[in-house]
Amino acid sequence: MNYANMLSVAFAEAQSGFAEGGVPVGAALFDATGKLLGRGRNRRVQDNDPSAHGETDAFRNAGRQTDYRDKILVTTLAPCWYCSGLIRQFTIGTVVVGESVNFEGHLDWLKDAGVKVIEMNDADCVALMRRFIEQSPQLWFEDIGECT
Amino acid sequence: MNYANMLSVAFAEAQSGFAEGGVPVGAALFDATGKLLGRGRNRRVQDNDPSAHGETDAFRNAGRQTDYRDKILVTTLAPCWYCSGLIRQFTIGTVVVGESVNFEGHLDWLKDAGVKVIEMNDADCVALMRRFIEQSPQLWFEDIGECT
Repeated sequence: MNYANMLSVAFAEAQSGFAEGGVPVGAALFDATGKLLGRGRNRRVQDNDPSAHGETDAFRNAGRQTDYRDKILVTTLAPCWYCSGLIRQFTIGTVVVGESVNFEGHLDWLKDAGVKVIEMNDADCVALMRRFIEQSPQLWFEDIGECT
Repeated sequence: MNYANMLSVAFAEAQSGFAEGGVPVGAALFDATGKLLGRGRNRRVQDNDPSAHGETDAFRNAGRQTDYRDKILVTTLAPCWYCSGLIRQFTIGTVVVGESVNFEGHLDWLKDAGVKVIEMNDADCVALMRRFIEQSPQLWFEDIGECT
């Protein structure tokens, strides 16, 4: 399974989100053969939708599935509690994480629940997110529910 | 604060969802004064959207908020991991739960994170959900990611 190629789909979504003035987190859901089921990005700004994190947007765009145990969710940034809860509730089998430097998420919680977590430590993901947080700290804190 | 009146808003959403052939879970988000910010219901069937649980739909419809610590989320059914993660990430201060008989959720996890949880043990909520699960067990299991 070529996780780097999969991550490039999520990263392209993050780049589009950044260009749109949004929170640059992208994600994509793949089946066990590596076929793309859905891709998406954070849409807080674009759609005035606080429920659309990158992971939930990709999950939504993949439509209804009956079994996620063999699915692979790729995200440019470590999932927050909201997206970690999504992964755990729907028993998504594998999560590929672009980076966990700018936000560390709850990867141990996912691993403890049996999720296979693959950390890519991708420099491009780190750089894009860092640039965004430096430019728009208020928007970033809003997106993760942190009051300043 | 009249939690029973607030729950009636969420229950009306659940009833609408049932009438539409959907998963009958409704929710609503209120501010600290009891003003309704957004209401919604599970839209898996109606919108082919697996990301739209009742809680997330109400959260979405309330639009962007900068602080949820004084907000009240009312839901007809105990939140799953996905919706519990939403509550925890955005630090929603109070959660009013219609019932936790048909699905017990993770109320202790929320309480441990500092969320004020109010259990209503509402007979109408229990009866509607029970009727749905008996009629449509496959749809229910799909909605909570349980494979049969």
